[in-house]
Amino acid sequence: MWRQMAGLVLGADLGATSTRILVATVAGRRLASVTGGGGNPTTHGVQRAAVELGATVRRALDGLPADEVRAVVIGAAGRATLDDPRASRAFSDSLADVGIMARPQYVGDAEVAFCSATSVPDGTVLLAGTGAMAVQIRDRRTARASDGLGWLLGDEGSSFWIGREAVRASIAAITGTGPATVLTASVAGRLLSEPVHRSALIRAVAARPPIELAALAPLVTEAEAAGDQVAAAICEDAADRLAGSVAQVREPGERTPLVFSGSLVRTPVGRRVVQRIGGEVLTPADGVVGAAWLAVRHLRSGWTESQLAHVHAVLAAR
Amino acid sequence: MWRQMAGLVLGADLGATSTRILVATVAGRRLASVTGGGGNPTTHGVQRAAVELGATVRRALDGLPADEVRAVVIGAAGRATLDDPRASRAFSDSLADVGIMARPQYVGDAEVAFCSATSVPDGTVLLAGTGAMAVQIRDRRTARASDGLGWLLGDEGSSFWIGREAVRASIAAITGTGPATVLTASVAGRLLSEPVHRSALIRAVAARPPIELAALAPLVTEAEAAGDQVAAAICEDAADRLAGSVAQVREPGERTPLVFSGSLVRTPVGRRVVQRIGGEVLTPADGVVGAAWLAVRHLRSGWTESQLAHVHAVLAAR
Repeated sequence: MWRQMAGLVLGADLGATSTRILVATVAGRRLASVTGGGGNPTTHGVQRAAVELGATVRRALDGLPADEVRAVVIGAAGRATLDDPRASRAFSDSLADVGIMARPQYVGDAEVAFCSATSVPDGTVLLAGTGAMAVQIRDRRTARASDGLGWLLGDEGSSFWIGREAVRASIAAITGTGPATVLTASVAGRLLSEPVHRSALIRAVAARPPIELAALAPLVTEAEAAGDQVAAAICEDAADRLAGSVAQVREPGERTPLVFSGSLVRTPVGRRVVQRIGGEVLTPADGVVGAAWLAVRHLRSGWTESQLAHVHAVLAAR
Repeated sequence: MWRQMAGLVLGADLGATSTRILVATVAGRRLASVTGGGGNPTTHGVQRAAVELGATVRRALDGLPADEVRAVVIGAAGRATLDDPRASRAFSDSLADVGIMARPQYVGDAEVAFCSATSVPDGTVLLAGTGAMAVQIRDRRTARASDGLGWLLGDEGSSFWIGREAVRASIAAITGTGPATVLTASVAGRLLSEPVHRSALIRAVAARPPIELAALAPLVTEAEAAGDQVAAAICEDAADRLAGSVAQVREPGERTPLVFSGSLVRTPVGRRVVQRIGGEVLTPADGVVGAAWLAVRHLRSGWTESQLAHVHAVLAAR
């Protein structure tokens, strides 16, 4: 049947925690949707990411003709890494190994997230998970970014940021420079086997990769749900920072879609962000749809926007 | 002549960038003051710190009788590391190798800084260099600390913090989310060989050890001196945070000495901190005096405070 569809498309989203692949017909019919292990080239290195991509694509193509895949769009955070010729060769080689000869196009994860939620060309996207970034989208491309600087320089309001604030609040409570909070017990429970002590907490954090602080973020939303005022203040602060990043890349009164994607969406922080932003906020049901749809756009540049919008609707329906 | 002084004392300050040794008589007469390479056990590891201590003490004792050293006080950031029996054994072994049999006492760098500047028992000390910490001192010991959490969790207003703000301000200027600043050119000049670009700066920072951001702090004070408003705002913010850390460990209206030590003292940030704190701020002329003087106190516990204050004055006079 796909032969009648005149070719297939493949969309990929290379995340830090998962590699997502969607294979579809150019008409938008979903043929395979597969999730593999973490495969972001910035997080895991190009070689490991290329191997994960190849393995996940192979699973997605099970029973489908690889040589019919005519367009491939790969979305990844830190897209700049993929502009490196060695990186794009590694990815092309991985695809060739499974029989795909189409040359992949690379786009940012913000663009994929935006195009997963809507077929209109302009708007704003907020990505808030382990990292945090707001992006102004014009003609489905990044026009301007706010934050997205990584955990060392920014990512304000992200899970990393929230986890770090949880440790800071715990230490402040221990030393008496801040109010008591249930976070002290829950954070220490995660980090320490020894008695709770200021310098023990500092050492425990220093002994781990910094990014692991992101794993403490759920302790804050749990504490907030239990009525902890310190946790609630962290959630408020995180939401202020995320909404602030959005405000920096959104014109006053702008009526375009605002897309909100990432693990913080369905949390007390995400709900506060939506309240602050106001208006309609879209959340993509499936974050890899945008990559597959952009591949259709490449392959069918002669189609009208109305035809392409229909393909979008078909791709997004599950 | 030192034989008439009935014994010698040795004070050490194990910093990230230098190992400082002061050998003196119990009467406070300075016999040797020597600076070695970085030898902080937390920064460099215990073994390397012990080797650096041994080598620097050997130079300090040149021509002096090691077996006359009756008391040793070692000050270091991250004193908790030295509470580890393996660490204290490594340090004792290094001292024994150069002929010193006295068992060293370990104190925090805040306590050494405070006792370097004054002989009174109570007050506040602000350490602001690569890191940042304010400490309430009672009976010459740490009673309560504010910040000093390390670069990942805090050190707000430190050189690390200032350097990171310089990169953030540069990126904001590049992306148009913040005002133009001369920092963009000076920061890029340090970090990049390629053209100035948001993601190039992010990658350049991520490719280096985070603590190297501290080396960018002087660019901010240079830019401030040249009238740059963004740099001035960073200096103001840093000073607010440092003064805020002091306020957390100082009772309202407290009249005790406030000691300010570290590389930021003689900078536009340090001057702003002093303005905000008000009152008299002491700066130790020689940051290892406190360690040698605490060694005298150990050895001469029967002396009156007035006698010991006299020894302090002699030790601090250069």
